[in-house]
Amino acid sequence: MSHNSFGHLFRVTTWGESHGPALGCVIDGCPPGIALSEVDLQGALDRRKPGGSRFVTQRREADEAKILSGVFEGKTTGTPISVLIENTDQRSKDYGEIARQFRPGHADYTYFAKYGIRDYRGGGRSSARETAARVAAGAVALKVLKTLIGPQIAVRAALVQLGVHPIDRAHWDWAQVDQNPLFSPDASTLAHFEDYLDGIRKAGSSIGAVVEVQAEGVPAGWGAPIYGKLDSDLAANLMSINAVKGVEIGDGFNAANLSGEQNADEMRMGPDGIEFLSNHAGGILGGISTGQTIVARLALKPTSSILTERQSIDIDGKDVDIRTKGRHDPCVGIRAVPVAEAMMSCTLLDAYLRHRGQTGANAFVPGL
Amino acid sequence: MSHNSFGHLFRVTTWGESHGPALGCVIDGCPPGIALSEVDLQGALDRRKPGGSRFVTQRREADEAKILSGVFEGKTTGTPISVLIENTDQRSKDYGEIARQFRPGHADYTYFAKYGIRDYRGGGRSSARETAARVAAGAVALKVLKTLIGPQIAVRAALVQLGVHPIDRAHWDWAQVDQNPLFSPDASTLAHFEDYLDGIRKAGSSIGAVVEVQAEGVPAGWGAPIYGKLDSDLAANLMSINAVKGVEIGDGFNAANLSGEQNADEMRMGPDGIEFLSNHAGGILGGISTGQTIVARLALKPTSSILTERQSIDIDGKDVDIRTKGRHDPCVGIRAVPVAEAMMSCTLLDAYLRHRGQTGANAFVPGL
Amino acid sequence: MSHNSFGHLFRVTTWGESHGPALGCVIDGCPPGIALSEVDLQGALDRRKPGGSRFVTQRREADEAKILSGVFEGKTTGTPISVLIENTDQRSKDYGEIARQFRPGHADYTYFAKYGIRDYRGGGRSSARETAARVAAGAVALKVLKTLIGPQIAVRAALVQLGVHPIDRAHWDWAQVDQNPLFSPDASTLAHFEDYLDGIRKAGSSIGAVVEVQAEGVPAGWGAPIYGKLDSDLAANLMSINAVKGVEIGDGFNAANLSGEQNADEMRMGPDGIEFLSNHAGGILGGISTGQTIVARLALKPTSSILTERQSIDIDGKDVDIRTKGRHDPCVGIRAVPVAEAMMSCTLLDAYLRHRGQTGANAFVPGL
Amino acid sequence: MSHNSFGHLFRVTTWGESHGPALGCVIDGCPPGIALSEVDLQGALDRRKPGGSRFVTQRREADEAKILSGVFEGKTTGTPISVLIENTDQRSKDYGEIARQFRPGHADYTYFAKYGIRDYRGGGRSSARETAARVAAGAVALKVLKTLIGPQIAVRAALVQLGVHPIDRAHWDWAQVDQNPLFSPDASTLAHFEDYLDGIRKAGSSIGAVVEVQAEGVPAGWGAPIYGKLDSDLAANLMSINAVKGVEIGDGFNAANLSGEQNADEMRMGPDGIEFLSNHAGGILGGISTGQTIVARLALKPTSSILTERQSIDIDGKDVDIRTKGRHDPCVGIRAVPVAEAMMSCTLLDAYLRHRGQTGANAFVPGL
Repeated sequence: MSHNSFGHLFRVTTWGESHGPALGCVIDGCPPGIALSEVDLQGALDRRKPGGSRFVTQRREADEAKILSGVFEGKTTGTPISVLIENTDQRSKDYGEIARQFRPGHADYTYFAKYGIRDYRGGGRSSARETAARVAAGAVALKVLKTLIGPQIAVRAALVQLGVHPIDRAHWDWAQVDQNPLFSPDASTLAHFEDYLDGIRKAGSSIGAVVEVQAEGVPAGWGAPIYGKLDSDLAANLMSINAVKGVEIGDGFNAANLSGEQNADEMRMGPDGIEFLSNHAGGILGGISTGQTIVARLALKPTSSILTERQSIDIDGKDVDIRTKGRHDPCVGIRAVPVAEAMMSCTLLDAYLRHRGQTGANAFVPGL
Repeated sequence: MSHNSFGHLFRVTTWGESHGPALGCVIDGCPPGIALSEVDLQGALDRRKPGGSRFVTQRREADEAKILSGVFEGKTTGTPISVLIENTDQRSKDYGEIARQFRPGHADYTYFAKYGIRDYRGGGRSSARETAARVAAGAVALKVLKTLIGPQIAVRAALVQLGVHPIDRAHWDWAQVDQNPLFSPDASTLAHFEDYLDGIRKAGSSIGAVVEVQAEGVPAGWGAPIYGKLDSDLAANLMSINAVKGVEIGDGFNAANLSGEQNADEMRMGPDGIEFLSNHAGGILGGISTGQTIVARLALKPTSSILTERQSIDIDGKDVDIRTKGRHDPCVGIRAVPVAEAMMSCTLLDAYLRHRGQTGANAFVPGL
Repeated sequence: MSHNSFGHLFRVTTWGESHGPALGCVIDGCPPGIALSEVDLQGALDRRKPGGSRFVTQRREADEAKILSGVFEGKTTGTPISVLIENTDQRSKDYGEIARQFRPGHADYTYFAKYGIRDYRGGGRSSARETAARVAAGAVALKVLKTLIGPQIAVRAALVQLGVHPIDRAHWDWAQVDQNPLFSPDASTLAHFEDYLDGIRKAGSSIGAVVEVQAEGVPAGWGAPIYGKLDSDLAANLMSINAVKGVEIGDGFNAANLSGEQNADEMRMGPDGIEFLSNHAGGILGGISTGQTIVARLALKPTSSILTERQSIDIDGKDVDIRTKGRHDPCVGIRAVPVAEAMMSCTLLDAYLRHRGQTGANAFVPGL
Repeated sequence: MSHNSFGHLFRVTTWGESHGPALGCVIDGCPPGIALSEVDLQGALDRRKPGGSRFVTQRREADEAKILSGVFEGKTTGTPISVLIENTDQRSKDYGEIARQFRPGHADYTYFAKYGIRDYRGGGRSSARETAARVAAGAVALKVLKTLIGPQIAVRAALVQLGVHPIDRAHWDWAQVDQNPLFSPDASTLAHFEDYLDGIRKAGSSIGAVVEVQAEGVPAGWGAPIYGKLDSDLAANLMSINAVKGVEIGDGFNAANLSGEQNADEMRMGPDGIEFLSNHAGGILGGISTGQTIVARLALKPTSSILTERQSIDIDGKDVDIRTKGRHDPCVGIRAVPVAEAMMSCTLLDAYLRHRGQTGANAFVPGL
């Protein structure tokens, strides 16, 4: 019921505003005895942090995570892990205009409509800066999964569409993702993508994107029926990322176009057990993992902060025209890549712990 | 944490298997003093119930809802409302094959992988028959919303794509939806849609669909930030409907194609208050309602039960080929229309109650 | 957040009013593969059911539990278990007075103050009849515990004080508890207790009681720190039983009288592992089970329904004097004995499943 | 489900170990627009903080609370309030013995049995130092209650029994509580109490206590039926305080001794509405507030850290004898007074917000 928490047995609560002194999270339910240090978090945070290329906001934040509790002599103890990240580059600018005006596409108006008060500095709580805390939690979750399940667990995301331009999936190469500032897995379209985004950036405009996140090595049986579905949890958790307007699993919206024959993922016994001949389902059937790769995609709208003047109103009910100056990502979809990985990792660990609790995690093996 | 419940302050718990003696739900947190009777539920249930046309399963169920608690002298009392719906047309057929085989695309394998046991009769708990309980709960939620907020609240869904064929949105007419067995709002494409679906039905095949659900009359301020987002809750709750593989809000996946200028929903003050000049956001910004119509779409995969033989395995790990006989919907997307309305209604009522609790629901009016 | 549910991974939702058509519960999170039938529930229900002796209400209810879902071919499937118990002996009496008057000590006034409406027939939802659903759920929980942990798990309660008269603990004999209608473990005081209660019953009066519940065979490690403490959960769940006004663990209120030297439960290694030399803690330290017997006591106020006239008001704000006629328990503490067992069983199973989920239940063995 | 959180709509998550760098809490669901600053927290923290008299631990902590989020321009914004309290006086002593030994009466053994690892420095997470975070949250809750409901809301606690010595309730004077280091409301027994406790302290021993907490000005209607009872929540939340072994409401365990006639709180209409002629119920009937003063008592065991040698074992399974040196409270019950107030305040605010959400908080007035 707390709006700033997600997960059930592995439960993450985040706090902090864009221009407050710090932000962070409390991670509750982390299994004990897992080797963990700030280094584990920093690698993930560095991938998300601002200022890394010309394609992301030029705000400079070290995003250094401090672990304040829950780890003792290098291992988790089962008690809550408090992570703190200081804000260091909140520019002391004049917020006079933004303080009284509602930027179109932003949460300015709705926060005010709900609460009658808002921290307008840099978007306050609605800023994507909150996702730093998610990335820290995701790094913990992934470390736990790799420790408890094994190194075969991999959670990876990539940009698969930039504005109207999809990548060429025939050239998909995971190794490319961390070699370019767009987190694209496709080197063939990279130069074109960068030119395209440069044009948008220089025009003070912005563009949407689609991100795909995959989880490999997840055994069959995680998730639960009906309202505890793994895809339901993924949908909620991915939709909670700033600017996300759509989530799909496996073939997603394209599944509407298919016939039952096309959509069926047939099965055969292989030398190492059950084998699926396709993965239209994206690794989830009836809300429970099949053992195949879990595949989800999320659509992100363009950054709402643009230099072009847009019509709006202010808190006095007066019409105003707004140009949003300041440092912004021309495409928020890019930095959403590590955030999507984090949300997938947290969702999976939570599903695993619940499965272990409620079913004992006694995996069925066909034929035994 | 219970996998068979959804909602927080308005919380629905469903139970029951496809071929058990009955199914139902317990609705907890319903505000007191709301006029409610079984008639309110039956109208909604009749729209979802099987056997109504040649395009849906020929199973005959009266789907008569009995209210066993929580209503006294025609009004809700604030205590839990228990709804019971008896199963009457469970055919006593031989389940020999299906008992030991995993139907591709169904949850047979994953339930077994998770639990090591499954009620295979008609899909057991994973059957879409469970959605009857959702529809009953949705009818309660809508009645409460109309009573507490006013009759201007409307929650309506329609089929907007059948297989590869979208409706022509220029011909959208809500009045059409209940005039045809496909819940289509577009009379112009109806004959074509029916022919198309007849062909699929006669071939023993199936097809996917897209459903759109809209909520009008929702004031600004419902929902919450971060992980309590109204779109997060909608994503989870719509994704939990059987066969759904994707959920989008407002422009959804198309938002990825837009520039910031195109996507911005500009605002102006009108005679009756704030007016938005467009609704790309689908009525939700920062997880909180804007006061515009809330728009969501859900993509449904084709029914997995088809007459064409598909490859699979059985519980002994033997390869088998399966044709799924029996009574099935050629397009599960059709009967998902009233279910989508129900999930939207429940989600909104829950959001409203939380808003009322945590913020006092003191709506901000610009200029005051 | 639903007020009619308790537990987390093993979650029970009850519904139903005293004079409605039926009452019941939905049990979610029951592990799969547990042999279960209505016979398992009936034994527990028969101990609680009314009409069994002159010391309890003379309402005649068969309290026959029907399992409507979640069990297939004699075993639990992991899906929700819906239990239904019909009300058969709701007397069609004139509720004219009670409908408009608030009985002192009852929840009449507070339900009305909260909801502005109440089902006044027999106390409606606030009637102790609701505890039948708890007992059914407790029987399921105990069956699961015995199956998963072993037959050494025992959950037993007994009456230890009737009004001002405590039992003589030197004569404690568990075998006595089901041999007398007071659930007393002490045969030596039984005749005296029965005379005492007969006097109260004949006077149309009532009396309070204290019940003790013990759980043997619980391994060390169940429960959790801080707000997830096993004693916190027990306190909440036992306090939720009708008429309970106090809960204590181990030495409870008497612990306030002790010095640190007296209260310390010393430890030594015995042939089979760790041995405690006393159990002042009642089997729980830091919210986590120690492996000793878990001991809790609950104090119950006297039944509020008495024949002596008491001052009150009615819904018009008029002073009235009330004598509560009808069939009542002269001491609600008696039938609370099986209810206390049920709440202990449910609380323990929930704690075990959470422990298994979050820690993997890798019990520490000193010296290994 | 997170073990380090409590509350539902007003939800508090605490973190931190006794000898880590800091501890704190995240307060989620605080209503917006409430004037709040660190000064509001500090007053409460100063009452709880160590080192204030010879009767409490001599650890010196400033217990300065920093608010890191959720407050903007002096008012709450509805977003999570993160409170941080640094640990400054963790003595760098040799933990060699305690690291491997289980102190009787402490949570050392159970944490280790559960997690297989524990932060043994000062008790780690199980230290009563965690209650500083509770007190900060309680100060927020009380400020909110006073702002939303009115200044007539008062939440106050006092020591009512020290070891075997009860106060003389005839001399109860709330003004005394903050005038003496024992938080006793009874000046007449104070000198005797101080002598008694001095003797215990000098002997290196410890003693238990009973604390009473009262809430005045709570309207009728807060709380909820069955498992959402206000007394259930109070029982859980008070039992979660370190060293608490029993909780009672109103007459509590003494209610067992009463007849129905004695226990009935009769009602009459007075000039300002309904009047109760007694308050055996402690302000709660059927789990819902009556409008009378809410009264709860908690029994605390003696501090487990004592200088007298006690028998125990170590992690190698060897018998050892332990004397617990260091700085300790001779009676943990004393500093539990402000903690009990904090838990009462948080519980009440949560109940109020839920009431407002689910019932609209339309208070019933008899006769209208």
